[in-house]
Amino acid sequence: MANISNTLRTPLARMKFSARKLVISGMQHLRLISSLVQGEPKGPEIKCDIPGPKSKQLITELSVIQNTGSVQLFADYDKSLGNYLVDVDGNVLLDVYTQISSMPLGYNHPHLLSLLKDSHNVKTFVNRPALGVFPGADWTTKMHDVLMNVAPQGLSALQTMMCGSCSNENAYKTIFIWYRRVQRGENIDFTRVEQESCMVNQPPGAPDLSLMSFHGAFHGRTLGALATTHSKYIHKIDVPSFDWPIAPFPKYKYPLENHVQENQAEDKKCLEQVEDLFQKYEKKGKNVAGIVIEPIQSEGGDNEASPEFFQNLQRIAKKNGAALLIDEVQTGGGPTGKMWCHEHFNLDSPPDVVTFSKKMQLGGFYTRDELKPQQAYRVFNTWMGDPGKVILLQGVLDVIKKENLLSVVQTSGDKLLKGLKEFQQEFPSLVNSARGRGTFLAINCASSQLRDEIVGKLKKKGIQSGGCGEVAIRLRPALIFQEHHADIFLDRFRQVLLATK
Amino acid sequence: MANISNTLRTPLARMKFSARKLVISGMQHLRLISSLVQGEPKGPEIKCDIPGPKSKQLITELSVIQNTGSVQLFADYDKSLGNYLVDVDGNVLLDVYTQISSMPLGYNHPHLLSLLKDSHNVKTFVNRPALGVFPGADWTTKMHDVLMNVAPQGLSALQTMMCGSCSNENAYKTIFIWYRRVQRGENIDFTRVEQESCMVNQPPGAPDLSLMSFHGAFHGRTLGALATTHSKYIHKIDVPSFDWPIAPFPKYKYPLENHVQENQAEDKKCLEQVEDLFQKYEKKGKNVAGIVIEPIQSEGGDNEASPEFFQNLQRIAKKNGAALLIDEVQTGGGPTGKMWCHEHFNLDSPPDVVTFSKKMQLGGFYTRDELKPQQAYRVFNTWMGDPGKVILLQGVLDVIKKENLLSVVQTSGDKLLKGLKEFQQEFPSLVNSARGRGTFLAINCASSQLRDEIVGKLKKKGIQSGGCGEVAIRLRPALIFQEHHADIFLDRFRQVLLATK
Repeated sequence: MANISNTLRTPLARMKFSARKLVISGMQHLRLISSLVQGEPKGPEIKCDIPGPKSKQLITELSVIQNTGSVQLFADYDKSLGNYLVDVDGNVLLDVYTQISSMPLGYNHPHLLSLLKDSHNVKTFVNRPALGVFPGADWTTKMHDVLMNVAPQGLSALQTMMCGSCSNENAYKTIFIWYRRVQRGENIDFTRVEQESCMVNQPPGAPDLSLMSFHGAFHGRTLGALATTHSKYIHKIDVPSFDWPIAPFPKYKYPLENHVQENQAEDKKCLEQVEDLFQKYEKKGKNVAGIVIEPIQSEGGDNEASPEFFQNLQRIAKKNGAALLIDEVQTGGGPTGKMWCHEHFNLDSPPDVVTFSKKMQLGGFYTRDELKPQQAYRVFNTWMGDPGKVILLQGVLDVIKKENLLSVVQTSGDKLLKGLKEFQQEFPSLVNSARGRGTFLAINCASSQLRDEIVGKLKKKGIQSGGCGEVAIRLRPALIFQEHHADIFLDRFRQVLLATK
Repeated sequence: MANISNTLRTPLARMKFSARKLVISGMQHLRLISSLVQGEPKGPEIKCDIPGPKSKQLITELSVIQNTGSVQLFADYDKSLGNYLVDVDGNVLLDVYTQISSMPLGYNHPHLLSLLKDSHNVKTFVNRPALGVFPGADWTTKMHDVLMNVAPQGLSALQTMMCGSCSNENAYKTIFIWYRRVQRGENIDFTRVEQESCMVNQPPGAPDLSLMSFHGAFHGRTLGALATTHSKYIHKIDVPSFDWPIAPFPKYKYPLENHVQENQAEDKKCLEQVEDLFQKYEKKGKNVAGIVIEPIQSEGGDNEASPEFFQNLQRIAKKNGAALLIDEVQTGGGPTGKMWCHEHFNLDSPPDVVTFSKKMQLGGFYTRDELKPQQAYRVFNTWMGDPGKVILLQGVLDVIKKENLLSVVQTSGDKLLKGLKEFQQEFPSLVNSARGRGTFLAINCASSQLRDEIVGKLKKKGIQSGGCGEVAIRLRPALIFQEHHADIFLDRFRQVLLATK
């Protein structure tokens, strides 16, 4: 086996090899395939119910100080490796959920671990600066070489942040600031009335502007971001909000190829509502400064919209003088087979703003140059990002490039989607509407209850997956998820479906 | 000198020694004093104007992708050590600002650097989990041993976050959720109307509740936090906000001991307004669910209020069924000589919520047990903190304890404040109103222009300080700032005042 592995030095060679091997179905061949992370477990291994006794004990102890209703298990991150999450009870799970889609290279990737042997990097982790005032000597280079190196085409300005919510909040502010500058006229100073009224939260200084979002959207949970989130009531109930417009997001019928006309009509209907909401909120005195949208609604149920929908949405935004913000917090960083999901859409021109976080290790947003705030301290906070996370991001991007992981994603994703489509043929009363891009995939279950049941049974079979929306199971494996991992997943999923039938 | 240093093993011995030595004024004796961080520079060293040519070049290059109007210099964090910030042009600055008060042990503290030699710690930095779903094996222990170990008395619940703004935003949500539970009655379920209306940002599900804040306050820059921030218009202008009540914060006359009655009257006037605002906003249909306040208004100008003010404010909050949130993002973690500034206030009972970030390395908030959300996913996000930062925090707290740094803060602070008070006697036309607790100190200048001039001249003398509010210079040294550092600061400050006179 060592000899075989040694001849498979390139990802392409490995992929061809694994593709060849996997024509012969059956698990006995899987051990021949070389994992991108050396020493990965050969497959899942379940020792007890999850959460097991040790996890349960830790949940009890943590419950003393916080609500732990969302905790599924306690993990042993020292033992987890590659695509495999090991829990404190010794269960080994193939992880297709990867910390809500935030671990691009899985666990303990050797390249990332090696970065912390470098004394400059160690110092960077220990000395987190106030980046807006005293950035470090290599910060400019890192921004250009790491973050701008993967910038969406046409977006030349960049602001780093700490997390996804902060990224969206500050992107919203950037849009409002830009919109008011256009309204006010370039180089026109703030009036005294504006300066004074904003200090007491009143117009005209704190203007009655709005941001349009979509039903089913998720953009975060801080108060501004939460006003544009509409996925589950438990995220929003009891929290004051803004009266901002909410448009319908297309609901497609699957398979797409059998419902072309209906889905085109659905696009049209939704876009008409977008246009109407611009008028309606202008009449209300709450002009729409921008539109925020996910390329694939993730928390809301992996809801897709067509490239044509996004193209037309951008045209409507432009026509109304509003900015288009594409929230790539969950889709960005490679899982759709491209660095940014909106690259699949062939937009007329770059979006105005693209936000990121999760797989990118830190938050932030790219904008067109025109949206860069012209005064200091308008988009600002103490940390404004974290150079330690940029070191990890650089490591991630280096591995993506060296191992050609976007192509691995495409190959594994094709295999997964093919498998899911076969399941919906074989088990039409259980699952339907397989969809997605790259390994960013989902399938719907016949009911919420069935979805939860299947996710639970998958876990008993050693697969850590996750739900989204009402009825979807979402796949969010790491970028190092290969075809032999897909085979294990599909094999276990089929066992679950057979046992559920 | 080595012999002398060796006999001064405890901070107390070192302090006594340095106090004795410094009776003899003059810089030639300073080298005899042992720094808590070995190898620290002996004093500031200025080689060129700041920003120097290398900083200027880096600013130009960074300006291509973002507004750099707030950048003062580029730092060499590999060379910076202890209380000394070294910039890329080789200037060595005594740092009394410490990255907007966020570096508790200064730069490259050897204990923090040593933590990254431990392989478990390295793995913790590389494997950041979704803490709300898959916390690591040692997370419960870390929460109890590190964060709960320094919890404000009486606050038994804890939620970690990423930064100060997110901490306040989620603390506000926690208050609204608690307030509605009290209004609704325990164990009463959400109505269908509430569930549906919140999804479209409308009451009753998204209720018209408000949070009271103070003029001059700073609680962050995301939209919810920004609605309670009222320090500078440039932070707020052009961003939509909430119509929430804003109360006057006391404006004291100094020295306090000469203006006891006037300042008591000031407290009374402000508290009456707080009471009035409760009534006014209830009549508006926007009940006040909570009050958010800093123990010392920091960005707003280091504005203090008396313990009696805070005691009475808490009584008013309780009387009105509102929660009291004390925002210790800047004051927390030791700089006032206590772990939490509100410990100076002798409140009747613990505050309901205390938020933190900055010196604590990560954000979060403590609450009374009653405010802990009862359902999962209400206060939640992907990361919910960062175990890597908790490793650093544990290191910081270990050093604070071992070196008795809260006592160092008190001793250095006493010396600094005494010096500042002497300056306001000697230069009454230039500076006044010296104030603060521990090393968390400030002094006002006669005008904004003069303040900026003095901060600039201090930098030319090798002191990195910072302004706040209209006319204040604020001191925010690290907790390892000792008496001999105070002597250098006071000596340079006096030189500046003499030259400005």
